[in-house]
Amino acid sequence: MDFHPEIFARIRERIIKLSTFSEEKGAITRPFMAPSMRPVVEEVGTWAKTIQLESRVDALGNVIVRSETRRPDAKTLVLGSHLNTVRNAGKYDGILGVTLAMAVLEQIHEWQLDLPFHLEVVGFSDEKQTRFPTAYLSSSFYAGLFDPTWLQLVDPDGISLTQVLQAWGSDLEQVMTEQRKRDDLLGYAEVHIEQGSFLEQEGRAIGLVDTICGQTHVAIEIEGHAEHAGTTPMDSRRDALALAATFIVEVEEIARQFNDMVATVGELNIEPNTSDVIPGLAHLSLDVRHPDNETRINTIQSLRATLQNLCERRGFQHTWSVKRHTPTANCDEELSQQLREAANTFEGTLPELVSGAEHNAVIMSKVCPICMLFVQAKQGLSQHPDEFTRTEHIETAFRTMLEFIRRLADQRA
Amino acid sequence: MDFHPEIFARIRERIIKLSTFSEEKGAITRPFMAPSMRPVVEEVGTWAKTIQLESRVDALGNVIVRSETRRPDAKTLVLGSHLNTVRNAGKYDGILGVTLAMAVLEQIHEWQLDLPFHLEVVGFSDEKQTRFPTAYLSSSFYAGLFDPTWLQLVDPDGISLTQVLQAWGSDLEQVMTEQRKRDDLLGYAEVHIEQGSFLEQEGRAIGLVDTICGQTHVAIEIEGHAEHAGTTPMDSRRDALALAATFIVEVEEIARQFNDMVATVGELNIEPNTSDVIPGLAHLSLDVRHPDNETRINTIQSLRATLQNLCERRGFQHTWSVKRHTPTANCDEELSQQLREAANTFEGTLPELVSGAEHNAVIMSKVCPICMLFVQAKQGLSQHPDEFTRTEHIETAFRTMLEFIRRLADQRA
Repeated sequence: MDFHPEIFARIRERIIKLSTFSEEKGAITRPFMAPSMRPVVEEVGTWAKTIQLESRVDALGNVIVRSETRRPDAKTLVLGSHLNTVRNAGKYDGILGVTLAMAVLEQIHEWQLDLPFHLEVVGFSDEKQTRFPTAYLSSSFYAGLFDPTWLQLVDPDGISLTQVLQAWGSDLEQVMTEQRKRDDLLGYAEVHIEQGSFLEQEGRAIGLVDTICGQTHVAIEIEGHAEHAGTTPMDSRRDALALAATFIVEVEEIARQFNDMVATVGELNIEPNTSDVIPGLAHLSLDVRHPDNETRINTIQSLRATLQNLCERRGFQHTWSVKRHTPTANCDEELSQQLREAANTFEGTLPELVSGAEHNAVIMSKVCPICMLFVQAKQGLSQHPDEFTRTEHIETAFRTMLEFIRRLADQRA
Repeated sequence: MDFHPEIFARIRERIIKLSTFSEEKGAITRPFMAPSMRPVVEEVGTWAKTIQLESRVDALGNVIVRSETRRPDAKTLVLGSHLNTVRNAGKYDGILGVTLAMAVLEQIHEWQLDLPFHLEVVGFSDEKQTRFPTAYLSSSFYAGLFDPTWLQLVDPDGISLTQVLQAWGSDLEQVMTEQRKRDDLLGYAEVHIEQGSFLEQEGRAIGLVDTICGQTHVAIEIEGHAEHAGTTPMDSRRDALALAATFIVEVEEIARQFNDMVATVGELNIEPNTSDVIPGLAHLSLDVRHPDNETRINTIQSLRATLQNLCERRGFQHTWSVKRHTPTANCDEELSQQLREAANTFEGTLPELVSGAEHNAVIMSKVCPICMLFVQAKQGLSQHPDEFTRTEHIETAFRTMLEFIRRLADQRA
């Protein structure tokens, strides 16, 4: 059976169409449940209509297209990714997964495949901590894991999640009642551009995600003493930046001792930040990721002890606040094996990768088996206006996903 | 001869009076030639009137009170400091020197001392690089060293020095013609609060400044590569902050190798400054001070080589721009000896200090011999709202300056 002749052109067109919805002129910026997300979910609805399906938008702004099987007691296979973006984003991160999933659903409809499970495509309304100080509000809601206390969360502009939901038109009552534990799920499969350049370097179209790395995010404040840079001798200084610098060097050294460990100080703000005053305060972020939870936790503890020692020895105060801690999510071996075999006939043995970035699949892993496919991204770019994925790589991912579903169907027939 | 009974209360009252002139409510902030400086120079004028002298304000906003001797071919001894302040300043930095100089002039008038030189009190309108990207515009003008190209300098709000002068009411023509090389100067003596806590620790009221430390200010930009903090392995990163941190640690280590050396990175800004992105850019300031010019220049060269090596080894680009370079200014041995002897009778041998901070005396040293007296500052605070100097210490400085002038007069009688 051949693919619809225009399927890949259509995926690309849709990706470009979605990129026109933004709250910033000349850039793609679609925060979680912002007005710019409205035309996006409506657009997905028009795609569903072409195969006589209805889309629905849930109380957290997720758009869902469901194709039901007539088999009794059937479970649901979910394909999805996210439709929101970071500020000044690219066209593919998240979007590729949703448009590809819709194309797969359309192809199955065109072939009139009779699946032994329901197929649901979901376009999540958030990913990462892009607006509120917690991650994955939308996939948590979809998975039945939404915590009602999150309604009180406030974004950087002082707008609460409650206000955002009301502005979107969601009924708060519905937020409580609509969510239910998903016990009908067969699994969740996500296609996403690789957020790195491993596949490009290896010359491979797609790769299989083995695990999604756990991560720990810490906010650190180091308090020294702001004094005159010209008149305070080196020996009597408490320079918060000099101490932070010593710590940052240690972070690099400790991280290099472990394979697959990454540790980053991405944010650093000092006060008063004036050339002739010794910095009295330093605020820094620490982001540590490693697929093995124990290794990561031990490293965090060792970094904390390092900072404590540095501060005690030199008479500094400091605070250490763990802001977020996500354990490693493992992809399901059985589903992953189906992906491997699906790709094997035309793509050979898939390279297997650890995802250093987070994905909605992390939340879905709490309620069902998950699997993930990475697609080569030009120069490894993600969350960047220059993101690009070649059509031949999209085709490989598409063929793999279709074959994956056919194999699952055969297995469960 | 006794002092005027209210002289110290009057100095304190005047210091407090000047502190009420500010462009910020609840804080003392008087930038160079800002409207808030107008009532300050007028206030100094009212002090001059009490001893039947006129004050004049020159084209750069300096206020000058001159008391002439009748001797023919007399030279001029200048006493002064600055009247502008940093943002959210204290009451004493600069101000103490001007109010004390005025009180000395008044006491000399009251005693009707017949000096063999003219006495001029100057309240400079700037010190340091507080508004325009060069230091000491006002003392340079007063000393006849003003560079007309400075008229094109622009402050952080985009206002040029020309505009500032015009707003103040200065005639630009006058800026060119009024300034003249000062070849009539006997010397310049400045009293200033110590910007450090040496005198407090030693329990001394005043100290003699030996040299004013030379300083070099460098702006550094380090360019790495901003990438995803979760997906970029440690070995393939070019983390601009990690490199900056290594450099900052080196700065501390190198500075500690020399007595009297201070080196500070007081300013650091990174981009994009987001917890999950590896910093791609780091901008930092470097401030190196040492009384020996050669030592300081060698250290700057060695720090530059260190940064260059770090960048080359790890594939970073960087820029190194020397923003300002002030050679060390030595106080005049003869004038300093007069200060030593003046203080000796009632204060014993004066401790001698290096000034790590800059002063208008640096500019004056280019046209005449200079000397400086530091007065104990509570907790060594300067450029801080809590600045304070005890009356007994002001009295010691006052007595020393009077005695210094009497000795100079005797010597030149």
